[in-house]
Parts: sequence; structure tokens; C-alpha cells
Amino acid sequence: MEYIYPLQRLIEKFASLKGVGKKTAERYAFNVMALSEEDANALADAIREAKEKVKPCSVCGNYTDSELCPICSDDQRDQTVVCVVEDTKAVLAIEKTREFNGLYHVLGGVLSPSNGVGPDQIRLSELIERLEKRTIKELIIATNPDVDGETTALYISRQAQPFGVKTTRLAYGVPVGASLEYADQATLMRALDGRREI
Amino acid sequence: MEYIYPLQRLIEKFASLKGVGKKTAERYAFNVMALSEEDANALADAIREAKEKVKPCSVCGNYTDSELCPICSDDQRDQTVVCVVEDTKAVLAIEKTREFNGLYHVLGGVLSPSNGVGPDQIRLSELIERLEKRTIKELIIATNPDVDGETTALYISRQAQPFGVKTTRLAYGVPVGASLEYADQATLMRALDGRREI
Repeated sequence: MEYIYPLQRLIEKFASLKGVGKKTAERYAFNVMALSEEDANALADAIREAKEKVKPCSVCGNYTDSELCPICSDDQRDQTVVCVVEDTKAVLAIEKTREFNGLYHVLGGVLSPSNGVGPDQIRLSELIERLEKRTIKELIIATNPDVDGETTALYISRQAQPFGVKTTRLAYGVPVGASLEYADQATLMRALDGRREI
Repeated sequence: MEYIYPLQRLIEKFASLKGVGKKTAERYAFNVMALSEEDANALADAIREAKEKVKPCSVCGNYTDSELCPICSDDQRDQTVVCVVEDTKAVLAIEKTREFNGLYHVLGGVLSPSNGVGPDQIRLSELIERLEKRTIKELIIATNPDVDGETTALYISRQAQPFGVKTTRLAYGVPVGASLEYADQATLMRALDGRREI
């Protein structure tokens, strides 16, 4: 069946979201049709606005709608411990444990020679800049427990050595090979508790 | 963790889609953030436009962006057979078989006394109006094979009697490609009842 154009377009646009296949996109398009006009427009506005207003924090790279993210601008948080993560989803996962009160550094990826991702493609120089200010005493490297994540952790720990900071890695409470965002809170809490010096 | 407002709002709006829970809404919000601004705006526009332009067909109730839906306005289709379905998703499912060349009638629900849905809450009077034109010879009642679907099918077949139309129901049986051992007893009984000579 050929869809009428506006529906066809909506399905295609939903399918442009990562992880949304054609079947799911169709379902969402029909779900949108079932919303009131007000709710559908609110969804459209929310997409537009989030994309327009949400930017990376100038310090840590986490999402923010002002210059600094809520975490970097919170002076109650421990400025001496920085948790280095691959992406903002990992920040979220760790924040949910309520176990960590330091700051973050979002790399926006990991070193992956096979995919052509080198140190310049991720936010590593920004991390070095932060280390140069000499307030950071510990880096908790919470990249995913897979090959690229390990490589990146090792690389960062070497880069951090001249600054005399302690570098630690999340304990293997996190299941090997999995992605941080899917780890349950208890596992993440164990992993934070059991972190070890690299 | 408190989300910054634009993200929080986006998550809530995604969660307003039927079948999208909080976790999934979070994931989509992050997926939107990963889109280019152009793609994100295209998604927002598609939602707004689909909701604005897509209306129910004045005859059958299927989605359309003009007065009649593409099926009702297609004079190659058999105007004497009408397949009665609960919703537009069922139209889609049947169209995909490419086996049916008649028209549709979308009820927009089924009779469900326990949920307070009576004949006036679904598009039944519109169906009677179509029958009154006396061009329809057969109604294939393809409501879902559950209690409410059956009740509705029976109700419609009675309403259709005065117009002398044939009313049929989709055949019950074991799903093609499935294994007998997983078929439930009710389905197997129906399949036995409806057995055909080879």
C-alpha cells in the first residue's frame, strides 16, 4: 500500500532516529495520528526546541541549555574528581545511582583505530586543558568495558600521568562487552564502589 | 538527575505516544539530539504537517490528505465488497497482502459494553448510510478475533440483514508458518471446524 504523502514522510522521519526501524516508525506515525493536534504540535515543538537550545557544556561536554551544565555549575559537587565517559547517556546512567558527586568529562566517543577515531576526534585535548588547571586529583575512567573503551582508558591514564592525578577504572561489576547505558543501578553502584587505580 | 528543561520536555512528549515508556522516550530524546539540526527540524515539521493535513476519509474513515482516501477514489477497486475493520492499522495489514481489491470501512473502535463503547461511539451509522446506497453486495467483517471484535461482527451482520448483503468473517485457523504445538486450543478448535478438503 502506498501511504498518503504526509504519513509516508512522517514514517521516514521517524525511521531517521537511530534504532527505529520501518515497522516501529509506522507504529509511531499512527500513534502521532492518534494524538490530539495540541499534543502532536507540542511534540514537534519539543523536538525543535531541544535541538535548538541544548548544546554541549563548554567544560565537560554534557548537554546543557546554558553555558555550563547543571553539574559543572553546581559548587556542591567535588571539583577534584572527574568521571570520564563516552557519551551523555553514560552521565545519565551514573547520575541515577546517586553515588557519584564529582564532575564529568564527556569524550563524545572512544579511540578506535579500526574506525579511524584518533585522539583528535574525541574531546581529549579538552580533558588535558582541565588537567592543566591542577584542581583535579582523580580521574575515574568510565568508558564502556569493551576493547575500544579499554584502549581509551589506558591512553587517558598515560596522558594523565604527568599531572600526577590518580586514574581509576570502574570495577568489573559492569558486565564485559555491554554498554553502560543498559547497566542496572545496583551494578553501577558496585562498579563505582570497587573502582581501582590503573 | 534532573534533566535540563528542553530535554525533560522532549522526553515527556515522546512518552505521550502510546506504547512509548519512559526509558524509550529517553532514548529517543537522545537520538534526536544526535540528529543534525536539519533532520530534527524535518521530523518536527513532518509531525506537525501529518497531523494538520491527514484527516479521515469522508466515506470509509481511512486516513487521507484529500476528501476521499486513495482507496475510495480508486475506481479500479471493487465497489461491491467492503471490508469492515477496527482501525487504519488493519487497513494497512490487509493492503499488504495484496489479496483484497474492494473498499474498506474503518469503525474507529469496536462495541465494548464493559468500556462504555456503544454503537454511537463507532462509525456504524456511516456504514448503514453506505449500505443504503445498495451498491454493496458483501461485507467482510474483519474486526479482531477477540470478544469485542466478535460482538461487533455479530451486531453488524444483524444490522446489515435488511439490506440483503452477504456478511462474512475472516477465517480462523492456525497461522501460516507457525508450529501446531504453539497454537492455543481455541484456535485449533476453530481450525478443525473450518477444515477443508484438499
